[in-house]
Amino acid sequence: MALIVQKYGGTSMGNITRIKNVAARVKRWHDNGHQVVVVVSAMSGETNRLIGLAREITNDPDPREYDQMVCTGEQVSISLLSMALQAIGIQAKSMTGGQVAIRTDDTHTKARIQSIDTDAIFHELNAGRVVVVAGFQGIDEHGDVTTLGRGGSDTTGVALAAALKADECQIYTDVDGVYTTDPRVTSKAKKLDKITFEEMIEMASLGSKVLQIRSVEFAGKYQVPLRVLSSFDDNADGVFDDNFKQNVGTLITIDEGDDMERAVISGIAFNRDEAKIVVRGVPDRPGIASAILSPVSSANIDIDMIIQNASVDGLTDFSFTVQRGDYEKALKILNERVKDDIGASEISGADDVVKVSIVGVGMRSHAGVASKMFDTLASNNINLQMISTSEIKVSVLIQEQHLEKAVKELHTAFGLDRQDGESKVAGL
Amino acid sequence: MALIVQKYGGTSMGNITRIKNVAARVKRWHDNGHQVVVVVSAMSGETNRLIGLAREITNDPDPREYDQMVCTGEQVSISLLSMALQAIGIQAKSMTGGQVAIRTDDTHTKARIQSIDTDAIFHELNAGRVVVVAGFQGIDEHGDVTTLGRGGSDTTGVALAAALKADECQIYTDVDGVYTTDPRVTSKAKKLDKITFEEMIEMASLGSKVLQIRSVEFAGKYQVPLRVLSSFDDNADGVFDDNFKQNVGTLITIDEGDDMERAVISGIAFNRDEAKIVVRGVPDRPGIASAILSPVSSANIDIDMIIQNASVDGLTDFSFTVQRGDYEKALKILNERVKDDIGASEISGADDVVKVSIVGVGMRSHAGVASKMFDTLASNNINLQMISTSEIKVSVLIQEQHLEKAVKELHTAFGLDRQDGESKVAGL
Repeated sequence: MALIVQKYGGTSMGNITRIKNVAARVKRWHDNGHQVVVVVSAMSGETNRLIGLAREITNDPDPREYDQMVCTGEQVSISLLSMALQAIGIQAKSMTGGQVAIRTDDTHTKARIQSIDTDAIFHELNAGRVVVVAGFQGIDEHGDVTTLGRGGSDTTGVALAAALKADECQIYTDVDGVYTTDPRVTSKAKKLDKITFEEMIEMASLGSKVLQIRSVEFAGKYQVPLRVLSSFDDNADGVFDDNFKQNVGTLITIDEGDDMERAVISGIAFNRDEAKIVVRGVPDRPGIASAILSPVSSANIDIDMIIQNASVDGLTDFSFTVQRGDYEKALKILNERVKDDIGASEISGADDVVKVSIVGVGMRSHAGVASKMFDTLASNNINLQMISTSEIKVSVLIQEQHLEKAVKELHTAFGLDRQDGESKVAGL
Repeated sequence: MALIVQKYGGTSMGNITRIKNVAARVKRWHDNGHQVVVVVSAMSGETNRLIGLAREITNDPDPREYDQMVCTGEQVSISLLSMALQAIGIQAKSMTGGQVAIRTDDTHTKARIQSIDTDAIFHELNAGRVVVVAGFQGIDEHGDVTTLGRGGSDTTGVALAAALKADECQIYTDVDGVYTTDPRVTSKAKKLDKITFEEMIEMASLGSKVLQIRSVEFAGKYQVPLRVLSSFDDNADGVFDDNFKQNVGTLITIDEGDDMERAVISGIAFNRDEAKIVVRGVPDRPGIASAILSPVSSANIDIDMIIQNASVDGLTDFSFTVQRGDYEKALKILNERVKDDIGASEISGADDVVKVSIVGVGMRSHAGVASKMFDTLASNNINLQMISTSEIKVSVLIQEQHLEKAVKELHTAFGLDRQDGESKVAGL
């Protein structure tokens, strides 16, 4: 018998038919002798409907009132799923964040979990019940409802799994796992059976939006085994064995150093939402990076890659990337408030660039991974505009028109292509 | 300065424009120096939408889960109204039933309020805030959400007014007060400025569905002055004086024995939802009423009027009324399970009957009220099929085709007709 936390997102809870499917799945796990805690999101569209109502009143709703309102979406979901479970003979009990209690700080709309009281949940589990917990929400010391921000239900699931010392936290979603790269770019993409927390964080932050990065960090910190799997595929249900060895979905776990070591690179991530800005002819003196970037950051513009060339004749070029939506704004700030101050000769940029990254814990112990990447791209006449590296990833900025070719060639070069007989991508 | 509890129903909160109107009204009271606690229902349609979702899963939802779900409608309303108040410069704070706390027993879907903690509300009022409380809901000793049943928001308003010792509980609705009879039946119906709790209970239970009867009983018990008024008429807003003497809406209050005594009859109520069943030739022996009615009651059929004729030759006729929806079912029960047992000669009935009642505390001290009613109907050739009386009302069952004439003639006979110059019915 295992203790499993399952999390179902808004799409999985999208209508009553789907909620009944979720109930049927939970029943199969329960019938196999497992204790199950289910965390659910609001039905898809519901949160946006509520936000829409608030927007008709004000663009700047009071955060406490916003949380008090928006948390109701999850509250409806937990009740409906509990009813659906009861309707098929499973004893179930719904709990709001307050009822659990999931205590948070009082930072409304993006609260942080401080503690979780597990007594009530264990009481229900030990009575043979399935516990259905509202995701995304908690309660602060004043008894006010708080919400955890976008993707907060993932965080609830992982935090509950950590607090309950669950054997696994299963994140059910509309994809059947984490892929070596986006299957829409290459049909040779294949599902990963395992990936480390660190790799998943790099994959997620680079655009593979399967899991909220915060919940992966949280799972890594508390070493909660996290499994991503499809809520629309019930082939493997109930055959889950006690050793968690079956290859359903993708298991995100700590680096065990065994079979994972074989793959140098786990995946190819990319991000289209990049724009490059180049500040040319900057006098190379201390504090110049700060003089360029501080005004940009102050305008709430996130900066991603940053590089500075070696200086020639005391002048250097300074480049960085921002999200495309911030491109014009960043250019304006630099031209109006920075260029003359620092004595730069020119501000230029481009918003038809993308970032492609290879990610893998294996590269730590393998030399030549970066050069293999650069060689592969060079032999396909793809020019590298920026490069940045970390311990487990290498990212390059290239022209958008080369994205698909770059991903496909790298996927093949690093031996990630799906072979005949390997599992196909669901839905393709 | 007065402490006012205002309750707004689902129609008054029906969309964002109406919610803004409610906020504007609350602001006028607040700006006049009054402390205001607002109780709101779910936006119209919302509760039914939620119930519809549950019905897609089961016809018999678990009451705890049902309450957990259905209470969210009011929770959305309190947040939206608080936002709307803040948007026009009024400090406001929303509170769920649990946050107040409104403690109830654990009879889900029809819980009874046991106690209300007023500390948190007074704390907010004393800080200059308007407090917006979710109607219809409470919390039991286990921390589970409970609901008070249909019309529960009225009960919340009255209970809060009693607990806070408010100067008045104002029930805003889509009519501008309580009328002498249904204005759709006679254009001479006029709005009552005052009515006693007892009269209001008789009027409400007889079909004038302005106020939930339970909340009127509650208000009477705790002597909370209750005012029914229109949320779509803002003429009198803010001119409310500290003596509560103005004639806005209808004030439901205790029988002060002064001006009220002048009106012998306060109103004419009627109920179309009646069906008559007659059991003929019943041997007149002890226990016969129970033998006839118990099987009917056991089938959850409500019985309204009951009469038994004096017996002739040891045989009697026994008549009673039920709601029309239960008519066929009641006939079936009597024919199949009762008739032969008790040795009745015939079971018959009619579902084209209506009940018409005259209501007034004044009839206590005036003889001849009933006979004046019977004379009026007789002189219009309206036959009385059943009669029942209480201390402050007389009800008769007549053929439905005579309903309109009966109401009009009684309205005139008892001096209730609106005179020229008296306020007209809103919307007519």
